[in-house]
Amino acid sequence: MPRYGFLGLGIMGSAMAANLVRAGFGVTVWNRTPEKCAPLVALGAKQAATPRDAAAHSEITFAMLADPAAARQVCFGPYGVLQGLDEGRGYVDVSTVDDATARDVGAAVRECGGRFLDAPVSGTKKPAEDGALVFLASGDRRLFDEAAPALDAMGKKSFYLGETPGQGTRMKLVINSIMGSMLTALCEGLSLGLKGGLEGSDMLEVLASGAVANPMFSIKGAMMLRDEFPASFPLRHMQKDMHLALGLGNDLGQAMPCAAAAGEAFKKARAGGLADEDFSALFRLFR
Amino acid sequence: MPRYGFLGLGIMGSAMAANLVRAGFGVTVWNRTPEKCAPLVALGAKQAATPRDAAAHSEITFAMLADPAAARQVCFGPYGVLQGLDEGRGYVDVSTVDDATARDVGAAVRECGGRFLDAPVSGTKKPAEDGALVFLASGDRRLFDEAAPALDAMGKKSFYLGETPGQGTRMKLVINSIMGSMLTALCEGLSLGLKGGLEGSDMLEVLASGAVANPMFSIKGAMMLRDEFPASFPLRHMQKDMHLALGLGNDLGQAMPCAAAAGEAFKKARAGGLADEDFSALFRLFR
Amino acid sequence: MPRYGFLGLGIMGSAMAANLVRAGFGVTVWNRTPEKCAPLVALGAKQAATPRDAAAHSEITFAMLADPAAARQVCFGPYGVLQGLDEGRGYVDVSTVDDATARDVGAAVRECGGRFLDAPVSGTKKPAEDGALVFLASGDRRLFDEAAPALDAMGKKSFYLGETPGQGTRMKLVINSIMGSMLTALCEGLSLGLKGGLEGSDMLEVLASGAVANPMFSIKGAMMLRDEFPASFPLRHMQKDMHLALGLGNDLGQAMPCAAAAGEAFKKARAGGLADEDFSALFRLFR
Amino acid sequence: MPRYGFLGLGIMGSAMAANLVRAGFGVTVWNRTPEKCAPLVALGAKQAATPRDAAAHSEITFAMLADPAAARQVCFGPYGVLQGLDEGRGYVDVSTVDDATARDVGAAVRECGGRFLDAPVSGTKKPAEDGALVFLASGDRRLFDEAAPALDAMGKKSFYLGETPGQGTRMKLVINSIMGSMLTALCEGLSLGLKGGLEGSDMLEVLASGAVANPMFSIKGAMMLRDEFPASFPLRHMQKDMHLALGLGNDLGQAMPCAAAAGEAFKKARAGGLADEDFSALFRLFR
Repeated sequence: MPRYGFLGLGIMGSAMAANLVRAGFGVTVWNRTPEKCAPLVALGAKQAATPRDAAAHSEITFAMLADPAAARQVCFGPYGVLQGLDEGRGYVDVSTVDDATARDVGAAVRECGGRFLDAPVSGTKKPAEDGALVFLASGDRRLFDEAAPALDAMGKKSFYLGETPGQGTRMKLVINSIMGSMLTALCEGLSLGLKGGLEGSDMLEVLASGAVANPMFSIKGAMMLRDEFPASFPLRHMQKDMHLALGLGNDLGQAMPCAAAAGEAFKKARAGGLADEDFSALFRLFR
Repeated sequence: MPRYGFLGLGIMGSAMAANLVRAGFGVTVWNRTPEKCAPLVALGAKQAATPRDAAAHSEITFAMLADPAAARQVCFGPYGVLQGLDEGRGYVDVSTVDDATARDVGAAVRECGGRFLDAPVSGTKKPAEDGALVFLASGDRRLFDEAAPALDAMGKKSFYLGETPGQGTRMKLVINSIMGSMLTALCEGLSLGLKGGLEGSDMLEVLASGAVANPMFSIKGAMMLRDEFPASFPLRHMQKDMHLALGLGNDLGQAMPCAAAAGEAFKKARAGGLADEDFSALFRLFR
Repeated sequence: MPRYGFLGLGIMGSAMAANLVRAGFGVTVWNRTPEKCAPLVALGAKQAATPRDAAAHSEITFAMLADPAAARQVCFGPYGVLQGLDEGRGYVDVSTVDDATARDVGAAVRECGGRFLDAPVSGTKKPAEDGALVFLASGDRRLFDEAAPALDAMGKKSFYLGETPGQGTRMKLVINSIMGSMLTALCEGLSLGLKGGLEGSDMLEVLASGAVANPMFSIKGAMMLRDEFPASFPLRHMQKDMHLALGLGNDLGQAMPCAAAAGEAFKKARAGGLADEDFSALFRLFR
Repeated sequence: MPRYGFLGLGIMGSAMAANLVRAGFGVTVWNRTPEKCAPLVALGAKQAATPRDAAAHSEITFAMLADPAAARQVCFGPYGVLQGLDEGRGYVDVSTVDDATARDVGAAVRECGGRFLDAPVSGTKKPAEDGALVFLASGDRRLFDEAAPALDAMGKKSFYLGETPGQGTRMKLVINSIMGSMLTALCEGLSLGLKGGLEGSDMLEVLASGAVANPMFSIKGAMMLRDEFPASFPLRHMQKDMHLALGLGNDLGQAMPCAAAAGEAFKKARAGGLADEDFSALFRLFR
């Protein structure tokens, strides 16, 4: 039975690591603030003092970190992953970072003799808890196959998107840029309708019976109407993803006017005190 | 068995009127260019020479017209609906018009002793053909109930949104403004991914397995990848709806930055020769 | 010496009519709330009870009204201008209205035997007081020439833009859409710099020494830094002009993404309690 | 008489270095493609083989480079500026880079015992040739004073914006984000007016007689009407500056919807073959 490392125990990481433990795998966890390891240890995980140690004791180490800076720090920093990855060990970054970070980390891992996948996830807190995430992976094909038991424990589906690290990240940014624009469109539409005397519940029901019916509108729409935004996917992360997606558009020469408008709305919401609410709290900016 | 009138036999109207005929109702049709009546007459409909005549021979007359100007012309113009609506007859405008047009037509119909519903539809060509439209109705409650057999023949669901004519129209504009922004977001995301080396089919599959999965992305996304845009919902109509929704935002004091950005994209596409293509042809502006 | 009528005594109209009186012309004024006529009467103007009366006693009547609805009301309504315009009298609408209003009013005036110019002004309160407005006129060429003494008393320059009424209005909307986008850009830039630790006065000085130096930035920028926005050009009017310009873009097939983004900002500001402040109060939305 | 180094001889750098030579200073130039040094050498400059050599032979070295990557390479790379900056020498980066680059370069220079200013310029080709640039400097105050003779030879005005390197860069990004939005607004307005039957020259004349009159509109507007865009400030650079300004907005939590919309337009124009035209060629996207 393979042994896994897991770095980063925020909302997503905690739920994912717990699913690995519950599936019976040996798991070594690490988090920047070590207190967050306690619930996992209580479930049966071991705790490592550094990313290096976690990587050195695992066949494959997963990382779920907040942003590109954290991803680089955990990899390249002192006592970082690179120092623990000897020949053949695998490192799978499931964070959402930018293109360049995925490629830089991938290159460094390969130079150390390690193997790398970037495999950001589509899905938020609930799918993480339910083991229903979708992994968007690119990089070492054999590592993808070997990681399958772990990915299956944490997710419902895994896509392999090619040998080049960064393709998984690009897919994630494509998906999340669409998601961010859609959420903004929902805020605008619901708010317009409420000002025009329509019932919120009627709007959600009509949306759910037509061609644009989707789970996010039902779930987030209901949160908007209740004005309650417990963080499943914090707004600051969605704002970051919009920024990264627009940066990718800059690199590739793709104009994205709708995502740009949505991105500015998320920026304003983040600066306006909604950073740690669920990203659906963007609604407060509009209504 | 009630007798129905049907005015306006474009893509949508032809399919809807055909469903009325097939359901066994007596139907009198009218169209500005009379040639378009032939297929309906072949099915068993009668043909009227003017909107007035159609209305005068029907208990309830439906109208599916291109824009507010056409809706006003058919109602107020010479040989218009108003001249045929004596006491108690019903007029149901299922076109997507603006707020003010719905209210003006409604007021005029009531003054003539008629009864009025504005009941724009959610759904495009295929649902129209399949009798699977969604009606968004407001106005006379009794007329809504009496029209139920006809609405059921043409649609799968009908919402009654209150006594004030125009609420159905507002709901439609809310839905379509969201739809227009979503379609734009899909164009941006797919185009970004293609430039970044992702497979189009992979993107659609990932979208279909997550929280934003919706029928429109599957159907329109596939059209985008094939670069074929047979008009199910012509781009010029979506552009008009975005414009009307932003106008409603102007009236109600609702900022809609994402819809505004999408609206300008549709405007550019309309001016750039894509007016009569399906609205998903917006993709050509981005890729 | 010709006798002039002047309809509409808001911020702009009062100042303009006063300049006509001070230049020695006979002036008959009218305003919807008659109290506003008092200062003009004190200067030597006569007061009319209705637009009709003002028009009937004047060779040329000017109108400075709040929006298209008011412009139509004063022209077509009971005791309106049309009823006072017998053969050869001139009517010059210096309001900013939409294209269609300018054309409709122009056609009706000509049918009555009158002559028409639409001649919206570029300039706000201070230039109105100083007789330094710019007139953007189209319509009857002879009327333009005959009105020259009055236009010269109120403005520093007059443009004649062709025979078709509405061209003056179009020019005004072009100018104001640019102005609205520029003001928004200034808000964004100043606010960005302040958050980044730059001095507001340094930013204005740098702006004033480069290629984009313009009077508006100096005047409105200083108001922004003082956070004082006495209305020279009320925000609600600028919002209206952005909306009209975008509507013209809709008619002519011109995409205007920057104006659309600015327009949504003005919409939000108007709805957020800034409608009657100077349009530079938009800054409060950004800082 | 001090000896100056000058690194980077593009459109701007060539003109600036030439003004230093013509003012009688000893100047050592370097450029990545060495051929571009020839005209300067012909004027009397010396040519260095590397940035290090240029810096080592100069009291103060100026750099005018294309983007942050180039600025970092010339400073930190092999044979870079850092290797030539012994005790007390000055390095003045007049490129437009991002905040972080200005701070990183500044810190590295100080660690080497050198002194640093970031002093990006406001102004394009013509002002560069005429010695009429505006310098936006921050960093070492004494270096600013000592560099005055050189700055005066190249510019008409210099602002000192504080001890923290990066403030000059921030000011530049504020100015250029405003400029980019303004240029976009001009494109939209002129194009709208042309479609509406107005004369281009009339529009420029009206703009020049009102509150938004500014040199850029006159110069760039005339280029747009002629459809000739010889590069004074290449579009790719303006696109980069918009991107950097929006990135600064991201860092500081400042929403900039108008700049975001303009930025996407420049992105589309860059990808559409206009990268090396003057930035006013954006007009081609709109008309």
